[in-house]
Amino acid sequence: MDFNRFLAGKSNLIIESPLSNVIRKIASLKSKGVRVISLAAGDPDPNLIPRDILADLASSILREYPSSVLYSPTAGLPEFKSELVKFLRKYDGVNVDPENIIVTIGGTGAIDLLGRVLLDYGDAVIIENPSYVNTILAFRQLGGALYGVKLNVDGVDINDLDSKIKYLLDKGLKIKFIYVIPTGHNPTGVTLNIDKRKALLEIASKYDLLIIEDAAYNYLVYDASQIKTLKSMDKEDRVIIIGTLSKVLGTGFRVGWIITSDILLRKIVNMKQPIDFCAPTISQYIAYEYLRKGYYEKYHLKAVSKYREKRDVLIKSLGDLLPDLDYIKPIAGMFTMAFLPNGIDGMEFSEKLLSKYHVAIVPGKPFYIDESGHNTIRLNFSRPSMEDIVEGVEKLAKLLKEYA
Amino acid sequence: MDFNRFLAGKSNLIIESPLSNVIRKIASLKSKGVRVISLAAGDPDPNLIPRDILADLASSILREYPSSVLYSPTAGLPEFKSELVKFLRKYDGVNVDPENIIVTIGGTGAIDLLGRVLLDYGDAVIIENPSYVNTILAFRQLGGALYGVKLNVDGVDINDLDSKIKYLLDKGLKIKFIYVIPTGHNPTGVTLNIDKRKALLEIASKYDLLIIEDAAYNYLVYDASQIKTLKSMDKEDRVIIIGTLSKVLGTGFRVGWIITSDILLRKIVNMKQPIDFCAPTISQYIAYEYLRKGYYEKYHLKAVSKYREKRDVLIKSLGDLLPDLDYIKPIAGMFTMAFLPNGIDGMEFSEKLLSKYHVAIVPGKPFYIDESGHNTIRLNFSRPSMEDIVEGVEKLAKLLKEYA
Repeated sequence: MDFNRFLAGKSNLIIESPLSNVIRKIASLKSKGVRVISLAAGDPDPNLIPRDILADLASSILREYPSSVLYSPTAGLPEFKSELVKFLRKYDGVNVDPENIIVTIGGTGAIDLLGRVLLDYGDAVIIENPSYVNTILAFRQLGGALYGVKLNVDGVDINDLDSKIKYLLDKGLKIKFIYVIPTGHNPTGVTLNIDKRKALLEIASKYDLLIIEDAAYNYLVYDASQIKTLKSMDKEDRVIIIGTLSKVLGTGFRVGWIITSDILLRKIVNMKQPIDFCAPTISQYIAYEYLRKGYYEKYHLKAVSKYREKRDVLIKSLGDLLPDLDYIKPIAGMFTMAFLPNGIDGMEFSEKLLSKYHVAIVPGKPFYIDESGHNTIRLNFSRPSMEDIVEGVEKLAKLLKEYA
Repeated sequence: MDFNRFLAGKSNLIIESPLSNVIRKIASLKSKGVRVISLAAGDPDPNLIPRDILADLASSILREYPSSVLYSPTAGLPEFKSELVKFLRKYDGVNVDPENIIVTIGGTGAIDLLGRVLLDYGDAVIIENPSYVNTILAFRQLGGALYGVKLNVDGVDINDLDSKIKYLLDKGLKIKFIYVIPTGHNPTGVTLNIDKRKALLEIASKYDLLIIEDAAYNYLVYDASQIKTLKSMDKEDRVIIIGTLSKVLGTGFRVGWIITSDILLRKIVNMKQPIDFCAPTISQYIAYEYLRKGYYEKYHLKAVSKYREKRDVLIKSLGDLLPDLDYIKPIAGMFTMAFLPNGIDGMEFSEKLLSKYHVAIVPGKPFYIDESGHNTIRLNFSRPSMEDIVEGVEKLAKLLKEYA
């Protein structure tokens, strides 16, 4: 059967994730029994998640709540949304009603739904360059035209943002939103500072634009208790915040959310029912009980200390072994980005590090929306053990010396 | 904030489910403490699902498999896909490799993904009239132009199908696929007979068209052990079968699948990663262990006997109390459709039955893609208890007599 003639024209916009190749190579090595040290993940450490607690929760939920195995409402399980309201107030400084929440298939699902309801082919999206690879793929396969804004060590470059907006408006383009990951940015590890948060909101207000605040890493903050969400500073309802418990419970539960209001909210809920019907009910019940019983305070905040230690180990190892290397010192999230010297290509370097030293990292290039970023690599510190972080950096340093 | 000017043009195609009103009214009555007998559900009976077994599985999975809390591959958890291959061979007569399977967010997710990859605005879709309301909404919000084919008591009307295809091709329309629910059709309860299955495949072959076979109710078959899936009879790879464990494990786990091949499969997998990343990992592990440990045979096949009894109770009640009523006698699925006499409007009748007698049913009209079906109602027998089925039909009969 030749399926080609049945494919939608817009399916031309679908491309394979540029990271698939990396993931395949890691899997192939592992399948041959090779021990691979991975600084390539995008997951939390499953050993820092209280899996025995989740196991007990899942077990009692399935026994005691018959409806835990059935559909939940498309906008989300009411019990979970009520707990989430309290959680968001406490940890994101966001005051919302349960009716403002749409529970989604993780943060990924939230990004796709927003793209689907907002983007027509050719609509402009302003995005940090680099940004999360799946967000780039999501908006592009929906026809979004991505325009990158420079990212500095303290977050998005405000001057560049302003001039980029002017340029696009002058060209007569329809800017649908500004997408940012202000805290623990993926892939760089950058966190937007408070003054620039204000400036970003002012610019959005000046040009009357929407902001999508991707708060995926908001619950992995190590050094800055005073980070405020854009949404908490937003007086004009122009920030749509998307969040997830992926870094708290684990990425596989697929529980995220969109906070918005009015017709945008109603359109998304109506659109969503024939897309996924609902986020997994068992996951929503687990999230509900986890928050309600205070396990976030009891377990997750301890896990954050451990992630902080891992971050410190990574930074110390890089500092000790590669004092000349340029990289971001993350105060939140799971990643740091490093900039390789002397025009070393991050793609080639990553491949060599894997094939020769069996250390997996992710090249930064696929996260850039243009031809820049060739010399970048992304290092994850959330998933590997401290020992693996040290050994991984040692081998990375070794390979880098071979280049010199 | 006026969100309207940011919405995509295609968001005009998004409408609220026509069943939302019904669902809201039921919820409103229940919230007032009213006991509502519901023959309106689309779920299995949570008391016929071995929830204690699922509880034990979930508990041991979360404890023993660290990766059960993390992302699984976008196309599905390999362990689950391997078990599913055996399951599909045994129960659907379908021979596939794990590589042909894409695990989705339930059957709903499968339908949406296929629509997204196949439909451009205005493309023709051939569909049974009536059909599943969420499928209608899914294809329409993606721009599909739906053309209905008459549904008889033994399935889709083959002559009508043939002439409808000819008509569309003569008009120069691009037919993307024929979507059918051949077994235990929602909302009617109709099952396509074997000769007409052959005829349907022949017509698809004659006109070189794709078929999407929605096998949502394949594991709720009561009287016909010899039903063969279209996919098992398909020698030309033109049938894309979508399935789900929603009726086995519960609708809330969100585990479904698409079986296809080649570029269509690759496009869907690539498109899917930035849409949902993966189906919930915990659900996939539960599904894997449930199938692997033989619980389908041990528990589900017993549940099917119970559903058969419920179906019998419904049919007997209808026969005893409403001997003149015209309705489908389902050999599979969860529903029957009844045709009210004397031009009684199903929407009005359903509302009155709920407000006056506190019995919830679903009007059939929202499942029709045209102006027909006004006198139809859908009755569910999977979720209510036998007592509730009897009482529900008694009250339905009472109201119907008041109309006469």
